[in-house]
Amino acid sequence: MSRRGRRARTGAPTEQRKVDYHNLRNPFPPMNAFSEDRIEALHQASLTVLEEIGIKVLLPEARALFKSGGARVDDEMVFIGRDMVEAAVASAPKTIPIRGAVRARGITLELGNLVFQPGAGAPHATDLERGRRPGSLSDFREMVQLTQHFDVLQMVPPLVEAQDIPVHLRHYAMTQTVLTQSDKVPFIYSRGTPQVLDGFEMIRDFRGISDDEFHATPHCYTIINTNSPRVIDMPMAQGLIDFARAGQVSIITPFTLMGAMAPITVAGAMTLSHAEALAAITLTQLAKSGAPTCYGTFTSNVDMKSGAPAFGTPAHFTASLVAGQLARRLGLPWRCAGGSAANINDAQAANESQFGLWGCLMAGASVVIHSAGWLEGGLTVSYEKIITDLEVLQMVAELCAGTPATDADIALDALREVQPSGHFFGASHTMERYQTQFYEPLVGDWSNFGTWTERGAVDADNRATGIWRNIVDNFEAPSHDPDRIDGLRDFIARRTEQGGAAPES
Amino acid sequence: MSRRGRRARTGAPTEQRKVDYHNLRNPFPPMNAFSEDRIEALHQASLTVLEEIGIKVLLPEARALFKSGGARVDDEMVFIGRDMVEAAVASAPKTIPIRGAVRARGITLELGNLVFQPGAGAPHATDLERGRRPGSLSDFREMVQLTQHFDVLQMVPPLVEAQDIPVHLRHYAMTQTVLTQSDKVPFIYSRGTPQVLDGFEMIRDFRGISDDEFHATPHCYTIINTNSPRVIDMPMAQGLIDFARAGQVSIITPFTLMGAMAPITVAGAMTLSHAEALAAITLTQLAKSGAPTCYGTFTSNVDMKSGAPAFGTPAHFTASLVAGQLARRLGLPWRCAGGSAANINDAQAANESQFGLWGCLMAGASVVIHSAGWLEGGLTVSYEKIITDLEVLQMVAELCAGTPATDADIALDALREVQPSGHFFGASHTMERYQTQFYEPLVGDWSNFGTWTERGAVDADNRATGIWRNIVDNFEAPSHDPDRIDGLRDFIARRTEQGGAAPES
Repeated sequence: MSRRGRRARTGAPTEQRKVDYHNLRNPFPPMNAFSEDRIEALHQASLTVLEEIGIKVLLPEARALFKSGGARVDDEMVFIGRDMVEAAVASAPKTIPIRGAVRARGITLELGNLVFQPGAGAPHATDLERGRRPGSLSDFREMVQLTQHFDVLQMVPPLVEAQDIPVHLRHYAMTQTVLTQSDKVPFIYSRGTPQVLDGFEMIRDFRGISDDEFHATPHCYTIINTNSPRVIDMPMAQGLIDFARAGQVSIITPFTLMGAMAPITVAGAMTLSHAEALAAITLTQLAKSGAPTCYGTFTSNVDMKSGAPAFGTPAHFTASLVAGQLARRLGLPWRCAGGSAANINDAQAANESQFGLWGCLMAGASVVIHSAGWLEGGLTVSYEKIITDLEVLQMVAELCAGTPATDADIALDALREVQPSGHFFGASHTMERYQTQFYEPLVGDWSNFGTWTERGAVDADNRATGIWRNIVDNFEAPSHDPDRIDGLRDFIARRTEQGGAAPES
Repeated sequence: MSRRGRRARTGAPTEQRKVDYHNLRNPFPPMNAFSEDRIEALHQASLTVLEEIGIKVLLPEARALFKSGGARVDDEMVFIGRDMVEAAVASAPKTIPIRGAVRARGITLELGNLVFQPGAGAPHATDLERGRRPGSLSDFREMVQLTQHFDVLQMVPPLVEAQDIPVHLRHYAMTQTVLTQSDKVPFIYSRGTPQVLDGFEMIRDFRGISDDEFHATPHCYTIINTNSPRVIDMPMAQGLIDFARAGQVSIITPFTLMGAMAPITVAGAMTLSHAEALAAITLTQLAKSGAPTCYGTFTSNVDMKSGAPAFGTPAHFTASLVAGQLARRLGLPWRCAGGSAANINDAQAANESQFGLWGCLMAGASVVIHSAGWLEGGLTVSYEKIITDLEVLQMVAELCAGTPATDADIALDALREVQPSGHFFGASHTMERYQTQFYEPLVGDWSNFGTWTERGAVDADNRATGIWRNIVDNFEAPSHDPDRIDGLRDFIARRTEQGGAAPES
C-alpha cells in the first residue's frame, strides 16, 4: 500500500512543508556588469590607488604592521605595494566556518553559499503600534527574537542601536541579549579594543570553551566600515587587528556612495571600494596570516540634486555585480547589501529592497545584509518591514531548494486521468502532494477582494504587525545552560562595577 | 576646450538623462530550473500528450486542418504526431517584427529581446480617486494613454474591459482608442472571426496600407488562451487561423494553474502547458506555414486550501524558468507574465509583482505581460500600481543599457584629487557627469524622514495618483492623419449601423 493510501485510511494529521532555509546555496547564475579585461583594469587601478595614492591609517599600531610588511609609511599615509596585497589575498581563507550555539546554527561563508542578515545599525526603530522612536534595548531584544525565529536569517547583526543604554555599557547589554535570546552567529561591534575583548570573553565563556578553542574557530563576526575615501580610523583598525588575532571574522565594507564619498561612476566607486577593502584585508593578514576575513562592499548612489542616499537603484545593482566579479577574482566570500530609502513600508520600500536583493543574488553574494526591515537608508528598522521582506527571502530560499522533475513530477498519468476541461483538484497525483507542495505565504493574503474586504481590508503592512507581535509575545528563548546565563550576568555586573568600557573614537 | 568647459562658461541648460527604454536586449544570464535531459523528457512527454492522449478542438475547421496535416481526429479529439509538431516548430519564424504607427515604435520579438506590456484583460479598474469599479471605455482610454506615455511599455494590450460598451460594439471602441491614443503595437481580441476581421480592417486602413502590405508584415497581435486542460475552444481556434492567414501575431498562452487546471507539480503543469502551446503553434502553421506565432505560458500555483490563484510565488518563478528552457529548445520568441494576487497596491503587491518579474527576466522572456498594474490575480488593473511597477521596469531598462567601465569611468584622476575623508561632490569628474549620471525615480521619494513628513508623509501609492493624473490630464495623442481618424469613425458608424459583430463563444 502506498504511503498516501495508509495516511488517507488512518486519517493521519496534516503534513507540514519542510524546506531547509538555513543551509542555502545560491542557485542564480552570476551576472557580469563589466568585461573580464575591464574588471582586471579596475583591480589594477585599485592596486595603483594603494601603491601610489595611499590610504590614511589613524592607528599607529596598524601603520607599524603595514610598515613591517613592506609598505611605505609617510606620516599617517600608508602606501601598500601590489605584492603585499596579492600575498594577503592568497593567505586569506576562502572558506570560513562560523559556529552558533549549536551545530545546526553554524554557517560557512564561501563563494556559492548564501546567508542573510536583517537590517543593521539603525538609530531608530519603528512599528505601527508604537511609532518611530530612538532604538532601545527592548526594541533590540524583540528584533533579535524575530531574527532567531526565522531560519532564513542566519546571523544576528546589531539591528537597532540600544540608545537607552549608556555607550560604555551598551555592548554588554546587546551581547547579552544576542547570546541569551538566540543561538545563531553573533555580531560584536568594533568600537575599540576594550569593548571587543569584553565581547570575546562573553562569547567564549557563554559557549563554555577555552581561549584556545575560541581562537581556533570563528564564533562571532564584526563589520568594518572604512571611512571613505581612503581612511581606516582608530576603532576600525583596532577591530581588524583584534578580530584577526583572535581568529574571528571581520566583514569589510567600504560604504562608498557614488557622487559623495566615492567617484560618481560605478567603475570609479568600485575602484575605491575595492582598494579600501584590499587595504583592510591586508591589515588582517599582517596581524595574523590566515585570519578569517570577508570581502565586501556597500556601494550605491546619491540623489545629485539633494545629496540624499538612494538604495535599490540601477547603479546600486550594477555596483553589486562588479563587487561580485571582483570577489570571484579574489576567491573570497563577500558581503553585499540591499536596502531602501523609503520612509515607510510601502510599495517603494518593497520595490527598492527587492531590486537591491536581486542585485546581491545575481552578483553571487555570500552574505546579504540589510535584507529585511531596513528603511530610510538605514536610519530605521521597521518591525513590519522585517516581516514583509522575510516573505521575499523565504521565497528565495525556496528557489535555492530547487524543484524536482522526475517522471512522477511530469505526471503523464495525471494528464491521462483528467479529461479535457476537467480539473486536477481531485486527481490522485494532486492528493498525494497537496499538503506540502507549495510555499505558504508568511504575510501574503491571496483571498479575493470580497473576502479580503469582509476581513477588514487590511494591507500587508498592518497584517505584518499581527505577525511580529505574535512571534514576540510567544517567543521562547533557545535553551542555554542556566549557569552560563548567570555567569554572563555576573561578568557584566563586575565589568559595570569596574566602569565598563567606553567606545574608541 | 572640453564640452563641459564650454557648457559651464555659457551657462547651458540642464541636461536630461536619455536612455533608450524601447529597444531592450535582456542582459540577464538565463537560469535553468531543470537539467537539459529532464527538459528533453518533459518535451517528449508533451509530445506524448499530443500524440496519445489528445487535445479537444471545438472548431470543425481547425480539426479539418489538423486532419489534413496528418493528425488523427476522433470526434472532437485531435491526436497530433510528433513529426507534425516538429515541422510546425521548424516553419514558425524565429524573429517576428511588428510595426507600430511609426518606425520608432516597431518591435521585434525574438529570443534575447525584451518587451513589456502592462496588465491586461481585467474586468475592473481601480484608483485612489475614484475607487474600484467595473472597467469602462474611459478607464481603458486613460490606461492606453499611460501605456503610450512610458517608452518601457512597447505593446498596448486590452488593459481593462470597457464594460460600458455592448459586447458587439466593444471591439470598435477599444481598437479606435488604441489606434488614436497611441502609436504603439496594438492588440486585437480573438473573439471570433467577424470581430477579428473588423480589427484587421480598422488597422489596415488607419495605417493607410493595402491588404497585401498588411498581410506581408505583422501590425497587431492577439493572445490565445487555451482552455486548460487540453481544449482549444471556438474563438481561440478561429483566432489562431485568422491571425495566421493574415500574417499577424498570435501569442499563445496556456493558463495552467498548478493544482487546478494543471498538475500540481511544476514539471506536470509545464508538460501540459507546453503540449497545448505546441498544439496551437501547429494549428497556426497548418493554417499558413511561416505564420508569426509566439510561444508562451502563464503557469502559477493555487492556494491548495482555498483554490485561490497565487502569483509571484516560487512555483510561478520556477515554471517561468522551465518555459524559458523550452522556448530556447524551440528557438521561438516567447511570452511570460508577472502579477500579484494582492488586493491593493501594498508591499505584498510590489513584492509579488517584482518576484514574478525576475522569474520572467531570468527565464529570458521575450515579452513580459501583466508587468505593470495587475492586482487581484488579474481581476483589477490599478492606476497607481501601473506607476509603481513602472519604476521597476524602468530600472530594469537601465540595467539593459549597461554601464561603461572606461579608464575615465575608473577615475584615477578623481581618486588622486580628493583627499582622505574628503568628498567627490565638487570633483571635476563629478561635475562633468552629475546631471545625467543616475536614473531619477518616477515615484520613489528619497527625501529624509523629516522632509518627507513635512511634505505630508505621502506613501508611494498616493504619490502615484498625482503622477498618473498629471499624465492623463496633459496627455497629447500622437499625431495621426485626420482623414484616417475620420475614416475610422465612419467605418465604425457603418458597422454599428449594420449591427456590429457579436463575440463568438
